This record gives sequence, structure tokens and C-alpha cells, in this order.
Amino acid sequence: MDFGYDARTEELRGQLLAFLDEHVYPAEPVAAVQFRETADPWARLPVMAELKAEARKRGLWNLFLPGEHGAGLTNLQYAPLAELTGRSPHLAPEAVNCAAPDTGNMEVLAEFGTPEQQARWLTPLLEGEIRSAFCMTEPDVASSDASNIATRIERDGDEYVVNGRKWFASGAMAPECEIMIVMGRTDPDAPKHRQQSMILVPRDTPGVEVRRGMEVFGYTDGPHGGHAEVVFTDVRVPASNIIAGEGMGFAIAQARLGPGRIHHCMRLIGMAERAVELMCRRAVDRVAFGKPLAEQGVVQEWIAESRVRIEQLRLLVLKTAWLMDTVGNKGAHTEIQAIKIATPRTVEWIVDKAIQAHGAGGVSQDFPLAQLWAQARTLRLADGPDEVHRRSLARRELKPYLNR
Amino acid sequence: MDFGYDARTEELRGQLLAFLDEHVYPAEPVAAVQFRETADPWARLPVMAELKAEARKRGLWNLFLPGEHGAGLTNLQYAPLAELTGRSPHLAPEAVNCAAPDTGNMEVLAEFGTPEQQARWLTPLLEGEIRSAFCMTEPDVASSDASNIATRIERDGDEYVVNGRKWFASGAMAPECEIMIVMGRTDPDAPKHRQQSMILVPRDTPGVEVRRGMEVFGYTDGPHGGHAEVVFTDVRVPASNIIAGEGMGFAIAQARLGPGRIHHCMRLIGMAERAVELMCRRAVDRVAFGKPLAEQGVVQEWIAESRVRIEQLRLLVLKTAWLMDTVGNKGAHTEIQAIKIATPRTVEWIVDKAIQAHGAGGVSQDFPLAQLWAQARTLRLADGPDEVHRRSLARRELKPYLNR
Amino acid sequence: MDFGYDARTEELRGQLLAFLDEHVYPAEPVAAVQFRETADPWARLPVMAELKAEARKRGLWNLFLPGEHGAGLTNLQYAPLAELTGRSPHLAPEAVNCAAPDTGNMEVLAEFGTPEQQARWLTPLLEGEIRSAFCMTEPDVASSDASNIATRIERDGDEYVVNGRKWFASGAMAPECEIMIVMGRTDPDAPKHRQQSMILVPRDTPGVEVRRGMEVFGYTDGPHGGHAEVVFTDVRVPASNIIAGEGMGFAIAQARLGPGRIHHCMRLIGMAERAVELMCRRAVDRVAFGKPLAEQGVVQEWIAESRVRIEQLRLLVLKTAWLMDTVGNKGAHTEIQAIKIATPRTVEWIVDKAIQAHGAGGVSQDFPLAQLWAQARTLRLADGPDEVHRRSLARRELKPYLNR
Amino acid sequence: MDFGYDARTEELRGQLLAFLDEHVYPAEPVAAVQFRETADPWARLPVMAELKAEARKRGLWNLFLPGEHGAGLTNLQYAPLAELTGRSPHLAPEAVNCAAPDTGNMEVLAEFGTPEQQARWLTPLLEGEIRSAFCMTEPDVASSDASNIATRIERDGDEYVVNGRKWFASGAMAPECEIMIVMGRTDPDAPKHRQQSMILVPRDTPGVEVRRGMEVFGYTDGPHGGHAEVVFTDVRVPASNIIAGEGMGFAIAQARLGPGRIHHCMRLIGMAERAVELMCRRAVDRVAFGKPLAEQGVVQEWIAESRVRIEQLRLLVLKTAWLMDTVGNKGAHTEIQAIKIATPRTVEWIVDKAIQAHGAGGVSQDFPLAQLWAQARTLRLADGPDEVHRRSLARRELKPYLNR
Repeated sequence: MDFGYDARTEELRGQLLAFLDEHVYPAEPVAAVQFRETADPWARLPVMAELKAEARKRGLWNLFLPGEHGAGLTNLQYAPLAELTGRSPHLAPEAVNCAAPDTGNMEVLAEFGTPEQQARWLTPLLEGEIRSAFCMTEPDVASSDASNIATRIERDGDEYVVNGRKWFASGAMAPECEIMIVMGRTDPDAPKHRQQSMILVPRDTPGVEVRRGMEVFGYTDGPHGGHAEVVFTDVRVPASNIIAGEGMGFAIAQARLGPGRIHHCMRLIGMAERAVELMCRRAVDRVAFGKPLAEQGVVQEWIAESRVRIEQLRLLVLKTAWLMDTVGNKGAHTEIQAIKIATPRTVEWIVDKAIQAHGAGGVSQDFPLAQLWAQARTLRLADGPDEVHRRSLARRELKPYLNR
Repeated sequence: MDFGYDARTEELRGQLLAFLDEHVYPAEPVAAVQFRETADPWARLPVMAELKAEARKRGLWNLFLPGEHGAGLTNLQYAPLAELTGRSPHLAPEAVNCAAPDTGNMEVLAEFGTPEQQARWLTPLLEGEIRSAFCMTEPDVASSDASNIATRIERDGDEYVVNGRKWFASGAMAPECEIMIVMGRTDPDAPKHRQQSMILVPRDTPGVEVRRGMEVFGYTDGPHGGHAEVVFTDVRVPASNIIAGEGMGFAIAQARLGPGRIHHCMRLIGMAERAVELMCRRAVDRVAFGKPLAEQGVVQEWIAESRVRIEQLRLLVLKTAWLMDTVGNKGAHTEIQAIKIATPRTVEWIVDKAIQAHGAGGVSQDFPLAQLWAQARTLRLADGPDEVHRRSLARRELKPYLNR
Repeated sequence: MDFGYDARTEELRGQLLAFLDEHVYPAEPVAAVQFRETADPWARLPVMAELKAEARKRGLWNLFLPGEHGAGLTNLQYAPLAELTGRSPHLAPEAVNCAAPDTGNMEVLAEFGTPEQQARWLTPLLEGEIRSAFCMTEPDVASSDASNIATRIERDGDEYVVNGRKWFASGAMAPECEIMIVMGRTDPDAPKHRQQSMILVPRDTPGVEVRRGMEVFGYTDGPHGGHAEVVFTDVRVPASNIIAGEGMGFAIAQARLGPGRIHHCMRLIGMAERAVELMCRRAVDRVAFGKPLAEQGVVQEWIAESRVRIEQLRLLVLKTAWLMDTVGNKGAHTEIQAIKIATPRTVEWIVDKAIQAHGAGGVSQDFPLAQLWAQARTLRLADGPDEVHRRSLARRELKPYLNR
Repeated sequence: MDFGYDARTEELRGQLLAFLDEHVYPAEPVAAVQFRETADPWARLPVMAELKAEARKRGLWNLFLPGEHGAGLTNLQYAPLAELTGRSPHLAPEAVNCAAPDTGNMEVLAEFGTPEQQARWLTPLLEGEIRSAFCMTEPDVASSDASNIATRIERDGDEYVVNGRKWFASGAMAPECEIMIVMGRTDPDAPKHRQQSMILVPRDTPGVEVRRGMEVFGYTDGPHGGHAEVVFTDVRVPASNIIAGEGMGFAIAQARLGPGRIHHCMRLIGMAERAVELMCRRAVDRVAFGKPLAEQGVVQEWIAESRVRIEQLRLLVLKTAWLMDTVGNKGAHTEIQAIKIATPRTVEWIVDKAIQAHGAGGVSQDFPLAQLWAQARTLRLADGPDEVHRRSLARRELKPYLNR
């Protein structure tokens, strides 16, 4: 057992920290002003192009992607870097081309895409030239059970015809979004886990209607691509747009899931660290009832608890990454669920306390805390509500006792 | 001891429920569309004028105000009505002219205002012709301790000159807002509780800059008047605008506080009831893993807990109202703090569960839940963070043991 | 609505408080010594006889029992008195002949007993000459669902024959326990709620084996009658010992339940008040890190939270008592479950904090806190675990939505 | 980074698991009977001698002790073994001669003892021939701040004279306890951290009065040596009994603390695993409302949460052990506090849920759960209440922000 980062990880952490200090943090107020001044909440912020150029120059690019197409890091090596990008979650991930849902979509294309699909879509995504969307959740069914997905993908000659309604399609509101990966049912008569497929749908295909941006707690998450309601009406794409063949939707979703969880959870941990930092700064600066918050027992409890909880969380996520690297997603199943259960709610708790330490300002646009909170809260629902994962984890835990 | 509402209360509850059913609930989707279609997030929604006219016609008007100027109800009689308006918190309170901060401002004017002040400002407020703002919190000091308020109100001949910076000035973004009550320091050398005063500042007075609307978790709360940052630079008003004389700011704030707490808490309880109703509807409608949510143990726990907690809360708030009516604000001090501590966090918990039962939709604009949540959360900070009230309540509880 | 106690209640509260101050509290250390010095953990403590004599002399006797047999108070009048006895839960309830399970057993005999049963058992119980046990829970079935009760009560000529195994039979370890009320199945073929009956079984009947005292968290609860495992093997009693006829077991259990809940919950609230008092005393006396605990924010939070929670709890229990008095047990069904859910866990939380404020001493025999805690914790299971009650309450809450 | 146990650890885990399966678990019911049948709650149970002989035969002995005197394992290697002994906490630790407080006392003697002290006391302790006690906590002061310790140790010629009162002196009730390590003040005028010393006091020294066993939630913890109140009145021991010289008490306490925390926390985790196992067994066996508990959502939540929390805890404790091995106690300071804060309360939560799943039986002597709970709860106070550790951890976290 060894709890230290390896040399490659430490080196990249150093480089990433320097990038954050020198470029990302200074860009935050700039971005805030640019966002306020734009009429279109979904517009790209000019400062992002500068950050991307700088990151690429420094070789901080596509760090998330293992194998030849990306930086070639293991999950365990990338995880601490994802955490660092979470410290400035609205700028840093995209700046280093490691922002969801592009990351997951690139993984899918790298692992399951044909050479043609890769040339057409993976390459510009890797270059950061276009963005992408992932269309899975549907408003009308409990989408946490993927077998409920009702969107139809039907073969018609050399084409597939897509019909259905999605929402919370991450990334679909971005003007640069050109391609969507859509999950839908190709064969309702196949065995349960072979009914669904994934297909590539260019955003400008006739019949695709990006109807509106969904809000989360009042936020549009515009600059990060937002969450769209998208209606597909007789949308026709070439048959070659299917990914890895019919019936592979469930398997691809599973493969996409593991790394996505690591990324999300580590970024959340980075957000939590940022929140603790803000809470500590506030605590030493703000005086109430004759002494700084930092000397008040209740605030001390918040800070200590935050530290105790973050340390546990990070270890669990890192171990999960290690398991994925060593025994694969399947062997890490319990842990992949565990981090989804543990991380959002813990980070939500920490950010809530940081908000409370900031008084009224904490809920406002003057600090990043309220928006961080909304992200953490939303992740208690993304990929299925926590309750679904607890149920599933418990059933696995109970299995040995059932077969006695 | 008697836990039943009196006849007058029951009668008004019936009338208010009918008004909600026949006019307010049907107006909710109308208001949503009008809000989306307006360019100005602070604009009045046309539907509100209709609701106000209808409410007034029905005699459901100024219910909050005791005495000759209002409906003449006791706190205990009004409290259950405030709860009902909380069921549609963005329409109902204003429709019956019982919306904060106008309610508190009208109380102040009714109790402490001169006949001239009343004629000029109270009358149009009671008529629902204008709206008002309350300017207390400051960004630079821990405003939960009123003695920290730093805005200066200085006498200069026949005028007072106001200088300072306020934020979260409720109501100040409303186009109809014409008058502000501003708290500030008139005499820094006076005893601690005599340093502050309240003064009437017309919103169009030179030197008043309503700088921007503060957001709460991404919401502008525009249609309800929002929360403004307001800067006062050498703002001059006639000396007769002072309320109840110099040094009375603290005393007025205390008097304003009690009823305001009752109103806020009862409206929150109404929101909680609405959230439970939505959660129950969702639970019977949505099927996951082969059975409705309503048959799943975890959701049942949420519903049962919500009921158990609401019942306790309501009783505590009603008892507080009864104490205020029978022994006065001072005798109800502990309870007034207790309801502030207990209500927002409990309602926050309940709404959180309702959100979770709604899946991704729960955090979006398609259900009122996320915005209800933001209101409940914010009230953990309004009037000072809960921690301040717990500290103060504990000290009162400990007092008898110190003097042994 | 009126939140004040009536004159009769206030008068009795005054008398009971005086009795506590003058006799019960001073008897606590005496009882502790007597308990340590006795070899038999189930023996009566001599001090109890003195307390009972004094209480009776003062007219503080059988306060719990409505109607001609008892003090004739309503539930709402008795509830605040039950709270006071909870302040010294190991002495006060028995001292005023209001200790479980005798209270419930006397209620059953008063309401359902024949004149012969009343003469034989109710009279000596009312006189405090004997004690009694209640035998319901069984180790082998989930007894929270009364229809699972498996003990058989079979008619054989002029007798009933009882066979079965009970545990946590409250009161059965007391040397003075002479009579047991036993729940068991008389007719397995009857409709579900008519299968069970209750029968009177004298403790010295052949075939009754009081096998052992069950411990709760290491405590025997000896002086209060303990909790016994009792085995019934071909136990024969006269047919006239059946209570209210065959098939009435479930109905009697329901009738017994409501007042029992009020008593338990109010006593728990009394315990919580005692714990808060001890916590406050400790807080002002004990210095750590340079200042009394009373000035430390974390301890202040505990004290404030305790007060906020107790106030809500008490109101809910009192309202439940009022409902029982005005609309009956059935109309108070939701509230009777709500207080069972809310009270034990809340009091457990409060006592836990009081323990924590006492350091190591808090878990020891030097303070009453650890034992109070064990009682509160155990009541999360008594009458069925909280989870069962939440499930049932939720189903009632959901019912209107199912029939839309 | 590597999250796998090394080969030595895996080998010993295998051997220890076999010992548990073949000897310890079967001895549990035997021990329960022997305990019930003995008149003296502090007596050694005959079965323990057999277990110790067997463990020693298997080479499972003194595993906790690094260096030449013990098994020579690192903290990281021993930690998973301590966890396994926690699965049967009343038998396994002592069986393998790894029971507190002997472990800590042996560490002190091995690290700080003179050859004479080691020959006289360490050797028989290592042989498992005698037991020992640790006397630190005092009833009259907040002992979590070691500088408050008031017991005096005064030099008088060739002797030291000890005067003071201790309680919760672990191990002191054991008949085999022959030696006590006592913390006390030698020089009140020395710098704060040099005032205290530790000294060896044979239990049979005149003036030592082991006054009584302290209970924890009704348990005497007799077979494990209990927790004694001990009064020292003019107790004279040779000057050579001082450990590591005058003024070293604080330093020794600090050195003793780190490994002790690891041991306690890992044993608690073992208890939690045992509780989860019992909860799962119960869940599949017990039917309520028509289906096994294992299929009920609320119980599934408990099981899933337990797993999620245990995994995080274990990683944190193992990382702490790794830090102690690699950078020393000082470098692991934050983590040593963090595990103390996180572990007892988490395990308490888990055991509470296991109790709840067991119904009334869960609080009784028929399952080990209630006693496990009492141990976990007590550890929220041992070594100082959690609040003290949170305060200290927060101050360390805040330090960088203070010196900006």
C-alpha cells in the first residue's frame, strides 16, 4: 500500500497548479464581466479562447483521455488533475479540453468509434474546435433505469430515423456544439440489455429541435453548454452513424460511466477545496460579536468537518480509480456507486457551510459558492438519484447472505 | 388549551382557499409565460393586476395588518392565512397586498409614522398603488448585529444626509417601488441601542443609486421586487422623514421583527405543504423499478417525515403568534428566535426531498420546487444567520444557571 | 386557539413540582445507594414505599386515569403532569402510581374489565398494592404487526390454555407483579383483526416461567419491573379471565395505545428537560480551554437546539392529547403516530448532547444521562420500530392522491 | 499509489481469519455463559486462557508491537489485523495479546522504559502473564487538555509520592492487573508541556485504592479489565519508576496516542463490519409486512450507507497508518485527529441501524450490538471529546490564512 502520488502525477499537478494561478484564477473576474455583458447566455466567452490556447501551449490538453489519442494517463493519474480543474469549474475543465460531456463523448468515440467516425468527430473534439452533447435522460420516464429509455431509433434502408424527446442534454445549448450522441431503442423485442443503441446525430440535422435550455436552480450553465430539451422528429442520419452496432447502447453507457464518475467526483472535491479555502478566508476576515469567525466554535466545526470529510472522499475516489485501472469497471462496481452516493451530498454539505459563513453574499453572484452548490446538488440526481444507487449497492451487499 | 382555529379564521381560510383555487393556481402558468416573455426581469406581470383586483373585490386585502388601517386580525388569526398565501408564494401574497417588505413597512408606518408620513406613504401602500423597499443589510459588516450598521444619517439643518451602501434591499428593484425605509447611524456616541435611526427615502431622491439586483441561487426574484444593492451618496431628505425620532432605529427594527417572522415562517410552511403535495402527486404517478414511488420505502419515509416536521413547526409558530398577542414581543422572544431557527431549515429539508422525488425536473424551471428551495435556504441567512439566533437563545437559556 | 394550561392543570403542576422538589429529587441518591447495596437487581427499593405514601397523602395518585376510578383528568390535563414525572423517571411515575405498564393495564381493566376482574385486579393496582405486566412482544415474529402474534390462547371447557413465548414483558420481573395481561391468538380462522384476544394470567399460575430479565444497553431496569422473557406452557386460567370477549385483543391494544403514547412521550419530554438542565449546569461549571463550556459556541448550539426541539415536540404531544379528548383516538391517528416518530429520537439527540457535555462521566453511573439515553433509544423500538410508523403514516398521507 | 495490502499483511490476515472462524466465534457463546455464571463481573473467563494458548501456538501474538520486542509489523501492516480483532472485540484482541490498554503500555515501556523496567513489567506483559492499567483521566478537570491533569507526583528522596484521583482507568479492575502507568504533575512551574510525568505504580502499592468500576451505559466491561476509579493517597514508589525522566509525560502521551488511535479505529471498523454482517443476516431472515427486510428500501439504505461509510473510514485510517510509518506522528497530526473524529460516530451510526433492524432484541444481551454501540459511543469521548479535536484540527487548517 502506498498513498503517495507517482512522479508523473506530481509533475502534472505542479504544472496545472501554475496554470491555475497564472491564468485561470485571474480569468475568473474577466469571465464574470463578459458573461454579464453578453445578451446571449449561451455565448462563448472570449476569455475561454485565450485560456485554451495557453493550456495547449503548456501541454495541458486532453489529460483525461488514456491511450494514443490523449495524454495516456491512467485513471489514477488523471483523477488528481481533475480535482484541480474543479477548483475553477466554470473555466479550468474546458480550458484544458477536459470538460463534460465532451470527455465522455470522446471516450466513446475513441473506444467504440469507426475510423470514419473518429476522423469526422473525434479529431475536431480533441482539437477543441467543436463541442458535443449527450442525449440520454427523458422527461417522461425514470431514466435512471436505462431500459426505460423510450426514444426510438429505427432502421429505414441506409438510414436510421430518430424520434423522441430528451432533456438535460448537456452541452447542446453551446453554439459550438455540432454533434450529439443519442441513446434510443432500436429493438424493443431484444433482451433487456440489448434493446438500446447509441447513434451520432449532427446538431443541424433536419428534425432536431433544441427547444430550450433547462435551468438548474435559476442557473442556465450557459457558458458550459447548458442542459437542453431536444426534440427529435423523424430525424434521419446515415446508418453508419450507429456506434459499435445495434444493441450496444447499454454496454457503451456502462463503459462511459466509470471514468465519468471519477471525473465528476474529483472535480466536486476540487470545488469543496475551493469552498473550504473561501470559508477560511472569510473566517479570518469577518468579525462578528467581537471576534473573527475563525475563533468561533461553530465555524471551527464546519472547517474541521469539511477537512475530515474531504480526506475520506478523495481516498475513496482514488481507490476507485485504482480499481478501474487494475481490475476494470466491473470489479470496481461497488466503489463506482459508492463515490456517486458519497461525493455530491458531502460536497453539498461543505459548500452549504461555506455559504453560511458568507452571510447573504454567499447565496449571491458575488461569490462562486451558490453556483457550486447548485452543481453539487444537481449531481445527487445526475446519472440517477442517489437512492437508486444505494438500492443497487445494498442488493449486491446482501447477495452472499441470500445464497446461504 | 384549545388547538382549533376560531370562527373568523376558519371563515377567512375558506375564502382564501377559494381564491387560490379559482384564481391564483390558474394564474401560475400564465405568470410563467409572461415572465419568460418580458425582457426586463423586474417588470410587473400583467396577471398580477387582475389578481389584486379580484382579491380586493373579495375583501381579501391587507389581512396582515392589525388595527384600524388593516383587517384588524390578531397575529394568531392572520398566521394561518399567511400559510395559505405561501402555497403560491410568487403570486398570492402580493395579490392580497400582504407581500414583504411592504407588510413590514406598512406596520412601521402604521405604528410609528406621523399623520403626514401615513398620508403620503401608508395610504398608497395600503391601496396597493405603490411598493416599497427596506434597506438594512450592508455588505461590509456583519449586519446580524444591528449595532454594526455603518450607513450614516446626519442632520444638516432641516434635512438629513444619508451616506452608505446597502444590499439585499428587498423590493427596491420593483418599478413601482417609490419609497425606502433606510436604517443608519445618527449618533455614534449614543448608547449602543440608541445610535441607529430609520428614515424615509423616496427612491427618486438624487444620490440614490439602485446599482444592481442581487441574485439568490441564480434567481433574480424580479417579479417580487428583487434584492438590490443600493448606494446612497449625500442623499438629502427633509428632517420630517425620520421615523419616530432619532435613535429609534433599533426599537423599530425589534417591533418590525416579530410579525415579520410569523409571516415568513407561515408562508414557508405553506410552501412546505405545497412541496409535500407535489411530492405525493409525483409519487403516485411515477413508476420506477416496477412500482410507483409511492410504494417505495424511502419515499414513504420522506413523506412521513415531512408531515411529522410540518405539524411541529406550525404549532410552534402559532404558539409564538399567540404569545405575541397575549404577552407581547418581549415575552415571545425565545419563541420568535426558535421559529427562525426551526422553520427555514426544516422547509429546506422537505423541499429537497420533493426535488429528489422529481428527478432532474425537480431542479428545473418546470416545477416550482427549486425556487421554493432557494427561498427557504436564503431565509437561513435573512435577519441574521441561524447561528446568531442559536447563540442568543442559548444565552437566555443559560442565564438562570449563571446567577445561582 | 389557546396555548395556556387550564387552572386545574396549573394547580396540579404546582403540587407535583413541590413533591418533586421536596421528596423525589432528595430520594434519588438514596435510591442509588439502595440499588447498589441490594443483591437482587429486581428488588423493590425501600425508599419507594415512603414516596408512595407521601404522594398519596398529597392526593397525587392515579392522575393518569380518567373517569370515576382515577383522578378524572382529560388527556390534555394529565399530559403536562406526565412530563413532570419524567424528570425523575425511575422514581416519580411509580411514586404517584402512574408507572407503565400498570397505567395501561389499569386503563384496560377500567374500560373493558368485568366487575369481578376489576374487583380482583384493578382495585389492588389502583391502591398500589400489587404491580402488573403486559405480555405482547414475541422474539420470533415481527410483533409490530400485531397480526403476527403467535402465542395461542385456546378454549378448553371452562378454561383457556395459553402457550407461547414472550419477551420484553414490562414489569414481569417485579416481585410485586401478580397479574399479567397476555395477548394471543384465539381464532386463527377469524378475520385478521378478530384473531387476537387478551387474557388475565396470574403470575403464579403453573406453567408460567419468568425465564430471565432482558437487558437494555446493559441496564436491567430492575427497580421498575424490568423486561422479562416469559414462557407459557399449557397455562390454564378460568374462561372468565378473558378480557371483553374473544377476538377483542386488537381493539383493546388500539385503545390502550393512544394514552400510552401520550404518557411515554410526555415523560420523555420531562427527561429531555432534565437533561437540558444538567447540560446547562455542567456548562456553567466546567471550564475547558480557558472558558466555561457555556461560552463555547458548540455547546450553545446544543442548548439552543434542545430548546427549539423540545418546544415543538411538547406542542405536538399536547395537540395529540387534545385531539384524543375531542375527536377520539381514531381522529388522532396521524398525530399518535407522529409523536411516536418524533419524540424518542429527538430526546435521544438531546440526551446525547448532554452526555457529551459531561465527558466520560456522562456515560457512567454518576449521572442519570446514560440511562435516560437508553430509555429514549429503546422507545425508538417499543410499540414497533419508527420505520413501521413512518410507513403507515405515509400511506395515510398518500391516500387522497391515489383515489384521484 | 497502491491500494492493495502487501504479502505479509495478506498472509497474517488469512491466519487471523482462520483463528477467528475456528476458535474465537465458537468461543463467544461459551464466554457469554461463563460471564453470566460468575459472581464477580471482573473475573477472568476460563475460555480466554484457551484462546490465548491457541493464538500463541499459531504465532498470532503481540502483532501490534513494532521492533524487536513484538511482531515487527509497521502500523500499516498491523492496522488490517486490528480490524479483524474488532470483529469479536471482547475476545479476539486479548486472545492475541493486543488488547488495550496493555498495548499502549507495552509500547511506552518498549520505547521509553529502562532495561530494568522492561525486565520487570514489559516481559510479563508480552508473555500475557499479567495485565496493566493506564491512569490519565480525572473526574475533576477537563482532561482532554492534558495540562489540566492535577494528580501530583512529588520527589521525596529516593521515592516519588503520588496523590490524586483518577477514573476511567482502563484495565484496573482486572484481577491480573499488576502495574499501572500514572500521569501526574511533577513540576507545576515548568513550561506547560514539561509539567507532567508518567510513573509506574504497582497496583498493590499501599495507598492505591481501586475504589469502584465505572459503568458505561450499564456495562461494566468487566472481562476486559473495566474502567476504574482509583484514588492515590501518599503512594510511594522508587524514583526509578519514573518513565523517561521528569517532564516527559506529555511527550510520552503524544507518542502513545498515534498507534492507539489506529488500533481503536481499526477495531471499531471491524465492529462495524460485524454489525453490517448481522444486519444483513437479519434482513434476509426476518419477514415484516409480507417481505423480508432485505427487500425494504429503508433497510437497503442502511446497508448501502454502511458500506459507503466504512470504505471511506478504512482508507482514511490506513492512510494515517502509512503517514505514521513514513513521516511520523507529527506529520500525521491532522489525520490522527481526523480518524478520531470520523470513526466512532460513523460506527455508532452503523451499529444503531443494525440494532434497529433487530427490533427489541437489538438492545438486549442476545446480540452483541448494544454493547458494540456503547463502545463506539464511549470512544466519542475517550482521548477527549470529538469537539476538542475538531477545534484543534480547524485551527491548524486556518493557520495559513492567519499569516497572510
